[in-house]
Amino acid sequence: MSKISVLRETKIDAHYFNMYASLMTTGNGYLGIRASFEEDYPEQTRGMFVAGIYNKAQEQVSSDLVNLPDVTKFWIEIDGVIFSMFSGQVSEFRRELDLATGELSRELVWKHPNGKQFGLCFKRFVSKKKLHMVYSKVAVTCLSDDATVRIRTGIDGQQTNFGTQHLVEDSLRVFSETWMQGEYTTTQSKQRIAVTSMVSQPGSFVAKNRQLHVTVNQELPKEQPFSVEKVSVIATSLEAENPAEFGLLQIREAKSYDEALIESQNAWEKFWRDYRVTVSSKNDFDQLALDFAAYHLEVMTPSHDERFSVGAKGLTGEGYKGHVFWDTEIFIAPFHLYNHPEKARKLLRYRYLHLEQARDKAAKNGYQGALFPWESAFSGEEETPEFAAINVRTGKRQKVASAIAEHHIVADVAHAVVSYYEASQDELFMENEGLKILQDTARFWLSRAVLRDGKYVILDVIGPDEYTEHVDNNAYTNYLAHENVYQTLRFMSKYGQKHTAFYDLCEAFLRKIYLPQPNADKLIPQDDTFLSKPEIDLAVYKEKQGSQAILLDYSRAEVNEMQILKQADVVMLLYLMPNLFSQDIVSHNLDYYEQHTIHDSSLSKAIHAIVANRVGQQDLAYRFFEEACRIDLEATSGGTDEGVHAASLGAIWLSTVFGFGGIAIMDGELHLNPRLPAEWERLDFSFVWHGERLEITLEQEHIAIRKQSTAPISIHVFGKEYCMTAGLEI
Amino acid sequence: MSKISVLRETKIDAHYFNMYASLMTTGNGYLGIRASFEEDYPEQTRGMFVAGIYNKAQEQVSSDLVNLPDVTKFWIEIDGVIFSMFSGQVSEFRRELDLATGELSRELVWKHPNGKQFGLCFKRFVSKKKLHMVYSKVAVTCLSDDATVRIRTGIDGQQTNFGTQHLVEDSLRVFSETWMQGEYTTTQSKQRIAVTSMVSQPGSFVAKNRQLHVTVNQELPKEQPFSVEKVSVIATSLEAENPAEFGLLQIREAKSYDEALIESQNAWEKFWRDYRVTVSSKNDFDQLALDFAAYHLEVMTPSHDERFSVGAKGLTGEGYKGHVFWDTEIFIAPFHLYNHPEKARKLLRYRYLHLEQARDKAAKNGYQGALFPWESAFSGEEETPEFAAINVRTGKRQKVASAIAEHHIVADVAHAVVSYYEASQDELFMENEGLKILQDTARFWLSRAVLRDGKYVILDVIGPDEYTEHVDNNAYTNYLAHENVYQTLRFMSKYGQKHTAFYDLCEAFLRKIYLPQPNADKLIPQDDTFLSKPEIDLAVYKEKQGSQAILLDYSRAEVNEMQILKQADVVMLLYLMPNLFSQDIVSHNLDYYEQHTIHDSSLSKAIHAIVANRVGQQDLAYRFFEEACRIDLEATSGGTDEGVHAASLGAIWLSTVFGFGGIAIMDGELHLNPRLPAEWERLDFSFVWHGERLEITLEQEHIAIRKQSTAPISIHVFGKEYCMTAGLEI
Repeated sequence: MSKISVLRETKIDAHYFNMYASLMTTGNGYLGIRASFEEDYPEQTRGMFVAGIYNKAQEQVSSDLVNLPDVTKFWIEIDGVIFSMFSGQVSEFRRELDLATGELSRELVWKHPNGKQFGLCFKRFVSKKKLHMVYSKVAVTCLSDDATVRIRTGIDGQQTNFGTQHLVEDSLRVFSETWMQGEYTTTQSKQRIAVTSMVSQPGSFVAKNRQLHVTVNQELPKEQPFSVEKVSVIATSLEAENPAEFGLLQIREAKSYDEALIESQNAWEKFWRDYRVTVSSKNDFDQLALDFAAYHLEVMTPSHDERFSVGAKGLTGEGYKGHVFWDTEIFIAPFHLYNHPEKARKLLRYRYLHLEQARDKAAKNGYQGALFPWESAFSGEEETPEFAAINVRTGKRQKVASAIAEHHIVADVAHAVVSYYEASQDELFMENEGLKILQDTARFWLSRAVLRDGKYVILDVIGPDEYTEHVDNNAYTNYLAHENVYQTLRFMSKYGQKHTAFYDLCEAFLRKIYLPQPNADKLIPQDDTFLSKPEIDLAVYKEKQGSQAILLDYSRAEVNEMQILKQADVVMLLYLMPNLFSQDIVSHNLDYYEQHTIHDSSLSKAIHAIVANRVGQQDLAYRFFEEACRIDLEATSGGTDEGVHAASLGAIWLSTVFGFGGIAIMDGELHLNPRLPAEWERLDFSFVWHGERLEITLEQEHIAIRKQSTAPISIHVFGKEYCMTAGLEI
Repeated sequence: MSKISVLRETKIDAHYFNMYASLMTTGNGYLGIRASFEEDYPEQTRGMFVAGIYNKAQEQVSSDLVNLPDVTKFWIEIDGVIFSMFSGQVSEFRRELDLATGELSRELVWKHPNGKQFGLCFKRFVSKKKLHMVYSKVAVTCLSDDATVRIRTGIDGQQTNFGTQHLVEDSLRVFSETWMQGEYTTTQSKQRIAVTSMVSQPGSFVAKNRQLHVTVNQELPKEQPFSVEKVSVIATSLEAENPAEFGLLQIREAKSYDEALIESQNAWEKFWRDYRVTVSSKNDFDQLALDFAAYHLEVMTPSHDERFSVGAKGLTGEGYKGHVFWDTEIFIAPFHLYNHPEKARKLLRYRYLHLEQARDKAAKNGYQGALFPWESAFSGEEETPEFAAINVRTGKRQKVASAIAEHHIVADVAHAVVSYYEASQDELFMENEGLKILQDTARFWLSRAVLRDGKYVILDVIGPDEYTEHVDNNAYTNYLAHENVYQTLRFMSKYGQKHTAFYDLCEAFLRKIYLPQPNADKLIPQDDTFLSKPEIDLAVYKEKQGSQAILLDYSRAEVNEMQILKQADVVMLLYLMPNLFSQDIVSHNLDYYEQHTIHDSSLSKAIHAIVANRVGQQDLAYRFFEEACRIDLEATSGGTDEGVHAASLGAIWLSTVFGFGGIAIMDGELHLNPRLPAEWERLDFSFVWHGERLEITLEQEHIAIRKQSTAPISIHVFGKEYCMTAGLEI
């Protein structure tokens, strides 16, 4: 196996501080800590998040993923000058996130204004073994002379979410002149958080203005490194009855930095063994992107708990307020489903546990069944903010319509339930929780559709393409609703459920639901009116894709009335349902909709890559793939400052495994139609199907599948069915 | 008249950024804006405060003076590099606060990492003419080449009080693509604030994360300065029914920077004409200190409104949460009283308007009459925080006892009432509001004192010296309580009030109150036990005065049991009551208590200067005076970071006018016993007495008093009474 990638930041440019703080986040699914530098910079936003810790600052706003008190800051004064990379001259700067171990490190040589040279080394990791523990280490060496250093660190409760305060400080304490502890309670959700820290050197403590600090003073004889290690334990009432006590207990068991790192490293090794996708590509960037995606998909997923799910920025920033979207089911869950299906089940359990809130939402909106919130957090209630960005022409903020019309999420969840079952064959889940979700979501569609000229139509919705609002018969929505109801009937039959009136209604729905068909030009209309709207040349906006630059020239209402797509719903549909139409139709639709898509959504490109690959356009697919990989790794205009694009990272994995890897699930059957791009010599990944891990190796002219047991597994390769017992080579 | 001083910051050292941000605050009594640099630095705390805008973030904590959304920040990018004084090389740095005009300016030459040279100039003032208006101006010139600049500024609602959020954002708007406006409401006090800003150059607007910004892009041809002017209007529900409307109205009337500056400058000229104290000293520093003090005393005082008073840091920072202490009546009010007595009356009206809350506090504590809160804000209720800093030995926070025992504030307010009357002869105020305060405060003392062995004693108090808590018969307290009751009777008689039971109780109190007398060593005991406590050598702590370094070696409880003073209560008493004891007694007590005083309080030194001067120790007095002047101007260990020491600035004026100037008020009569220090050739100040402004010039061997009318005024000079009609020369 090739060496797992290292993510590097090579130059010091304040424009990119927040991008790298997001990209290099350390975490473990419980905890995420932005890779802000230890010293403060005005451009840098710190962030530490515990999955599930949300709070509503006011009644009328939606919950934020709470930015917790900081433990990463080290204030360093050397010979009386406050250290920053700008207050002296820096050379030999090197910052790395080792994706293999989750360790973040920075080394540099700093020339003091007084001429002395110093070596500084900063290291940090969040333990993958002990979910609550954060280790860090700062070492200073005077390379040229003697010097004095003063280091201050502790717990900084001044952190807010962009000025919004979520935590009341309950107490700041120092125990045994060693352990610092801050206790906090969120203002509305009443979660309790305890942050407990200690450093390896004696110092003096001060508590003031929501900060608790220890200051260490040290003489630095020439060339003798002085290092301060720090351990912090983050605990909350989500998992501990008494977080403060828990913190004190855990910190007493803290190991040295190096010992704890080995422990954490071992846990990462286990992860990489199962999850890693390797590629022999002419472009090293591809492997970096795949490792980067896998690392983040792991770090963002709270596999330890099923009461909450994955936020749109994972635990890497405050963007989208940490809310959960359809992103989880459609883009993120598959990564886990086909590696460790129990983790995917936990994500579905989150939806199952909040069926009640989804039913409430449906009822409030005049529907039956379960209408999952467009955005959700801990409570499972609708959390979509009422307003989006200000409109500078009117001076007013725009209402966000997603909560009231972006209903496809209901079918997306149902789709994920079925996918989970098909991969895992988990009858226990399916018969109980899964089917409950299917029935409640199907019931929603029955009430959502209306009869018009003998057809069930679904009116006034927003599809995944948010540049086209309030349309009728969105293709993506209608097809997925059909699938939703269809699968509900299928599983009701399978588990011998009674043939009630609901069953009849479902059957009637399936008979009469309007499913848009290709028109004379072989185009599947995205909705009833889309194809009749005027077109404009999108070249200039496509160049700035991801920036929503079109909204600077046109209002949302104007965009709505043209053939302009943020992402293409029909392409998305073709991806999810590979056997719905012929290759010819797929190809025509990809061409047409691609022309009209700006790709302002980060979910767009990778899906086009998959569909392009399926219709044999590998070159185009590879270009889409590369561009999708750059969304975070080469972010422009601050797009990643508030966190990575969690779903887009899932999509990188999808476009590799489901795109070039050629995996497809059709009617519950596993298909493999690999088409590697010219740049790739070989692709290796594992894929768990029906309880067995398949190790798949793909080369331009060769396919090998290894499996561990001899239990037979059926697979279709290029349309031909094989029943594997020992494995397969083609 | 000599030129009014300019306060200068000459070097760029991040350790002093917050000190200068406090010292160079611009303001006008309505508004105070810390002199943070336009660009952000991690070490720099911004602050904008409107007098009277307080908020309690939680039920159980006390009110904060709210740190309002910022309008001072300018983010500047030059040729792609974010400007900071550390991101390029700075030369010719000059920053000044012109005390004559209240204008803050900064100029510097900045060498871009690409080698180009830029001239930058920043200016700012808060209008003294239009209280709500803030003007600023940024000019950039490329000195060596062509370049491009991008400037972003607006309204930043991410400001908090050290992480505590007080404002809910109600709306962010842009009107007519010109006026930006943010509307906010405080979470608990429900004050509404509108911040309205505009800039002089066209740009594009963005609102996000509690910030509303305009970005201006500009090409910079060589040597052509590009400048952006900005006007902001700050309005609140304290003075406007609809602050947002008010803001839009005012900003339409905004003038150009230069025009508005002239208007404001005129208002400052008027101030300086009346208030300025000039001195011909061997040390230029003395004049700077006097101008600095006068400037800040004006800027901190909300003369436009009587519903609130002066906070312990004025409007210069978040220190002491903006709370009002005895500092106002004893240290700050005299500056106004003897210049513009109507301003002093307003400060007393604040107390009068909150008699109800003071009566409530007395009742809650089991007393009668009015017990003014030790700390107060807008509501007039007790606002002293329950806890002070953490004790690192126990890990616990210390309870603050001042609210329950530091009762001298009651008599301090009464003293200020009488002083006001004596100076102003304002019978209308005195007969109505003043006497009401006197009676309610006297009633408090009657209930507060207890009979022991036939004497009224006052037990378990804290005097001004907060290093000695919970003592009996604190000399300062007992004497001032006596004075309080005595004056109450005097004015009840004067205004012919009925001879009630209350009158008898007062008389009995005056007969029996225990007033500590000098002992065999001529020492007036600070309290019943002080003189019997052990002494330690304080030399090492006196060297670090102001830092409370003693609390690092001793607990508060230990300090309490030794003869260790933060400030000397007996010296304070001798200052306030100049004719209580003979010079010999005064001299002995000054010597003794000075030895035991660390001067960890900023209120201490200047008072010692006055008393030293009265007993003929001018050299010592001058040393004390100089040290008092340095408290803010040469602050160490961050002492001024959270704001200037408002009372200590009042004390600088006192020690000049009442110290070297020799002013004393005894039995309502004006005395003048000037004793200039050897370093001073001449001292000029004006003093308003009985409605007439006396222009007093003092030289080593010469006294001249000019007055404008011929109305006779009596004055005692060196003990000899003169009746002035036209003036006086001695």
